[in-house]
Amino acid sequence: MLLLLRAEASPASLLERCKQLHIEAHLHRIGNRWAIQIPTNGHQTEALFRYEEVERILSDEIPYPLVQRWEGSVQIGEWRRGSSLLWIAGPCSVESRAQLVEVAYALKEMGVHVLRGGAYKARTSPYSFQGLGEEAIEWLLEVKALTALPLCVEILSERHLPLYDEIDLLQIGARNMDNYQLLQAVALQRKPILLKRNPQATVQEWLLAAEYLLLYGAPWVLLCERGIRSFERSLRYTLDVGAIPVAQRESRLPIIADPSHAAGDWRYVEPLALAAIAAGAEGLIVEVHPNPSQARSDAAQQLTIEQFKQLVQKATALCAALSRS
Amino acid sequence: MLLLLRAEASPASLLERCKQLHIEAHLHRIGNRWAIQIPTNGHQTEALFRYEEVERILSDEIPYPLVQRWEGSVQIGEWRRGSSLLWIAGPCSVESRAQLVEVAYALKEMGVHVLRGGAYKARTSPYSFQGLGEEAIEWLLEVKALTALPLCVEILSERHLPLYDEIDLLQIGARNMDNYQLLQAVALQRKPILLKRNPQATVQEWLLAAEYLLLYGAPWVLLCERGIRSFERSLRYTLDVGAIPVAQRESRLPIIADPSHAAGDWRYVEPLALAAIAAGAEGLIVEVHPNPSQARSDAAQQLTIEQFKQLVQKATALCAALSRS
Amino acid sequence: MLLLLRAEASPASLLERCKQLHIEAHLHRIGNRWAIQIPTNGHQTEALFRYEEVERILSDEIPYPLVQRWEGSVQIGEWRRGSSLLWIAGPCSVESRAQLVEVAYALKEMGVHVLRGGAYKARTSPYSFQGLGEEAIEWLLEVKALTALPLCVEILSERHLPLYDEIDLLQIGARNMDNYQLLQAVALQRKPILLKRNPQATVQEWLLAAEYLLLYGAPWVLLCERGIRSFERSLRYTLDVGAIPVAQRESRLPIIADPSHAAGDWRYVEPLALAAIAAGAEGLIVEVHPNPSQARSDAAQQLTIEQFKQLVQKATALCAALSRS
Amino acid sequence: MLLLLRAEASPASLLERCKQLHIEAHLHRIGNRWAIQIPTNGHQTEALFRYEEVERILSDEIPYPLVQRWEGSVQIGEWRRGSSLLWIAGPCSVESRAQLVEVAYALKEMGVHVLRGGAYKARTSPYSFQGLGEEAIEWLLEVKALTALPLCVEILSERHLPLYDEIDLLQIGARNMDNYQLLQAVALQRKPILLKRNPQATVQEWLLAAEYLLLYGAPWVLLCERGIRSFERSLRYTLDVGAIPVAQRESRLPIIADPSHAAGDWRYVEPLALAAIAAGAEGLIVEVHPNPSQARSDAAQQLTIEQFKQLVQKATALCAALSRS
Repeated sequence: MLLLLRAEASPASLLERCKQLHIEAHLHRIGNRWAIQIPTNGHQTEALFRYEEVERILSDEIPYPLVQRWEGSVQIGEWRRGSSLLWIAGPCSVESRAQLVEVAYALKEMGVHVLRGGAYKARTSPYSFQGLGEEAIEWLLEVKALTALPLCVEILSERHLPLYDEIDLLQIGARNMDNYQLLQAVALQRKPILLKRNPQATVQEWLLAAEYLLLYGAPWVLLCERGIRSFERSLRYTLDVGAIPVAQRESRLPIIADPSHAAGDWRYVEPLALAAIAAGAEGLIVEVHPNPSQARSDAAQQLTIEQFKQLVQKATALCAALSRS
Repeated sequence: MLLLLRAEASPASLLERCKQLHIEAHLHRIGNRWAIQIPTNGHQTEALFRYEEVERILSDEIPYPLVQRWEGSVQIGEWRRGSSLLWIAGPCSVESRAQLVEVAYALKEMGVHVLRGGAYKARTSPYSFQGLGEEAIEWLLEVKALTALPLCVEILSERHLPLYDEIDLLQIGARNMDNYQLLQAVALQRKPILLKRNPQATVQEWLLAAEYLLLYGAPWVLLCERGIRSFERSLRYTLDVGAIPVAQRESRLPIIADPSHAAGDWRYVEPLALAAIAAGAEGLIVEVHPNPSQARSDAAQQLTIEQFKQLVQKATALCAALSRS
Repeated sequence: MLLLLRAEASPASLLERCKQLHIEAHLHRIGNRWAIQIPTNGHQTEALFRYEEVERILSDEIPYPLVQRWEGSVQIGEWRRGSSLLWIAGPCSVESRAQLVEVAYALKEMGVHVLRGGAYKARTSPYSFQGLGEEAIEWLLEVKALTALPLCVEILSERHLPLYDEIDLLQIGARNMDNYQLLQAVALQRKPILLKRNPQATVQEWLLAAEYLLLYGAPWVLLCERGIRSFERSLRYTLDVGAIPVAQRESRLPIIADPSHAAGDWRYVEPLALAAIAAGAEGLIVEVHPNPSQARSDAAQQLTIEQFKQLVQKATALCAALSRS
Repeated sequence: MLLLLRAEASPASLLERCKQLHIEAHLHRIGNRWAIQIPTNGHQTEALFRYEEVERILSDEIPYPLVQRWEGSVQIGEWRRGSSLLWIAGPCSVESRAQLVEVAYALKEMGVHVLRGGAYKARTSPYSFQGLGEEAIEWLLEVKALTALPLCVEILSERHLPLYDEIDLLQIGARNMDNYQLLQAVALQRKPILLKRNPQATVQEWLLAAEYLLLYGAPWVLLCERGIRSFERSLRYTLDVGAIPVAQRESRLPIIADPSHAAGDWRYVEPLALAAIAAGAEGLIVEVHPNPSQARSDAAQQLTIEQFKQLVQKATALCAALSRS
């Protein structure tokens, strides 16, 4: 098993004690802490658990012990877990101050809890629009001040962290789910993190990425299923609705779905969104644009404000019918 | 385009007329009819359409013209399309007369419309239970007589067709979706067919299999999504909920889902079932067994009668909430 | 374990003996024989093995015992296993007597061991060319008489079996790998069978299909890897070269590859063919047409006779370099 | 089309000229340069191409113009493209100075061209060995000094770049192929880069990642196929040998394969390696460890020095047989 020490605590006394007890101990460095690996079946190991340097003891048998045993409360802005579906919405990319203000006020009025908007975009082609970067962050913060909506923004590089100080929910995008250096740097901010599933990741790999985040300091992780890559390409990705109850059986972490990226086509956003909720998702993150045909990225899949309004109504009715709040 | 002639009609006059008009014509045999392929852009081709031998004209551009243009009413037993969800339920395999009678009466009482039960089973291993065959069919017919429930039974070989005379809904299983010889033979019975999607088939390939069925005589085809094979194996298959609205955009054929085979585990049948309905499925086919732990096949995924009852209630509430009948 | 009885042998004495020994026995019917399932760990079970009714004892732990323990010699026409690569070649579809004669003589001269040619074709669309059927078989037999080349022809339905009496190597196509009714019917002919892997089948499922064939009477099975379905679609399928050594570790059955269907494009047939041989394939089945651009099916992927000649030369050199015959 | 300006060149004159010509121009920032997007079909656009600020003109129709048109020479250490197979070998992780020195001398003697070794490791679990980091880099540089072997080391974060100054071939691992921020930062070093294909990337997405690298300054990119994720899990990944000739048709960039990570099991490294070469790979990157059973990562898949020696011999013979150098 692994004795995970408190941040900055010294392993010296524990190692000394292991030596006295003839327990084979291996020292590891995990982020800003020490960890001591010892054999699982030693009888005398109990003596070690009382040392105040020890923060947690991790079993060898559970691959993601922090994820599995996580318990805590989840709250962001005016949303408290269990009170209703969590709605995160906004444009794929922040394109102008006017666009953002318009959509934010409309979403706020509809009861959306968190505003999303892309500043730095991860694009498959270097010739595609890469986001407005710092300027976009400034507008987002301004709109947050105007509307009191918390912000969810994807972060692509730890170099950008200083710009994200006022972002409420840091998003790790699907492409970066297994960028463990970024996971560590972001988790050290000790803020909640939205973790999208990489389209090729098994549920276990996804939960291991969440384990990195919890281990390095994130108070909670919002898991987000957004479609996996399969042979079927009539939609952009295959929304894996089964992963939602599977992940829920493995962990108490909250889980939502992103029907926009799974569909890649606005006509299929609603059925995928409703399917995800029926399968147990606690919320949705949806791309909404005041005028999708003019969008500089993901034009095909963004909903109009009116379309989104209908989705909210249907999803709310569906939850009520299933006696979920 | 393709001039599809009526069954048994002679192509001679049409071929003669093509010759006079200098239209290049190719003769094909499709089942028990002739078909004449002619170039799409001929002006004089209209003259040909009036021949009474011509039953239908199929465009070259639509890969599955009969599927795409299909319109008709769908009714089986006491279920009429649009009146409610279609429920097909029953044990994976018929195992005894007593088992079947018990489950059939219970399902009937719950409002199930069609009884399913396996007689000949397609098993990956030759050493697995292969079904009771003819004896199972006899019990099914007896139970149909007792309960007035229509029957849905999978057929594995055209050799078995004589035994399936009284079966109301012939099922083509996932493994046989691209067994075109079987599709043709079964479609010639001119009965409705439940067509499961092969776990590796694209939506287009699935609809092409349905095209075989309509072309060879099936009045309607009940499409059934039952999970595709992807890299993710935490459940047995990946239920492709997106395929439901995609297939609905391509065709007016009815579509249901099979959450039991997708999940492979009874604990996940309900979330997958609800997800499929939220995505637009018009019904479900579910494996239900009076005592699943004793089942001779698919023990892990069959629901008890009580579990199924809860599923029916939730699914019905969900449909009501979405204002679907 | 499973006591597999000789064809037509009665299980009565064995069941009686089990009863005396208080061994719990379950009787199964597998094709035209009886099989008796007994617990693995019984000490007294040895007494049963000596009964002459028992043909084989199958362990519970190995899913495909006949495949795993298969040993035997493999020979077809002038080819004997180990003497050289096995070459099976010919057109996708038999289109005319002239086409077949031309290609057969050319292939014979190049050292091809078996002539392939499609008579009944499994086509995704009912509007595609479905093969010339009986007429094609007649021409194939005529060409066999002229050239002494053994024939490999795919069979789609047990209904066609009477036409395949003189076919030397019966082919189960990829779409029918899990059509277990067809596997049984074909295996009962007691001829060698070429078994293509279904593009969605795991190696284990493929070997279980071979187990059906050996169990029902095939003397040997020629396994054929022809590409699996993955998300990558720049070629038609993904040739799974790793499956070749994996299957070879599980069984001594011969294994070849089909680069034509994996590639779907003649320009990629050669690299895939060479890769398969380098990975350990013992032979190849290749589509060759005297004039591919005129082919009625698979026009894009068939090699010309000249292109095929170069492939044979390179593959032969490659084998020599690896000191394989 | 896109007018890509020289690094640091001002777009002002060009924009002015566009205005005069009534050409609609959009300004983009790509790394440290400006780019001007103009309509493709303008007649007067030729006037713009002569401006010395313009470095390149990129067509809209080719998604990766730099990759497609790349031509140049490739050389690293003593290896020159076309002279022989390129061999990159070494341990998964650098574990000790002694381990590294032993393996490096042995590989050098066998003709290996580049030494690989992991310093910072991307591990699915935070509890797995994460590499020795800076210490590993120091030993690698020491061994480079001793043996004159160039080094290939994976880089996980731009934060580590200062440590990689003397690394000859910077490796972008599979997990970071679509970490575009890292691609840009690494490419700005203007060194050759080994780019592994992400197991879920299409060939087109892989080449677009290479486009990022060329656009941001890499002189050449060594493409590396290392297996894709499919449903088949009997090996760790599915080596996509077809991707090798497909990528070669799209680009003149060199391409090698990594059989170690594809196999995940030393017993299958050789057949996959030979298959990749037969399909056209120009070299291999192989994990070799003096004592694999003691390895701290990837113990199952590393070859012993002796096993690697045999692989080199077979691969060399295979190339000779195919008249490739």
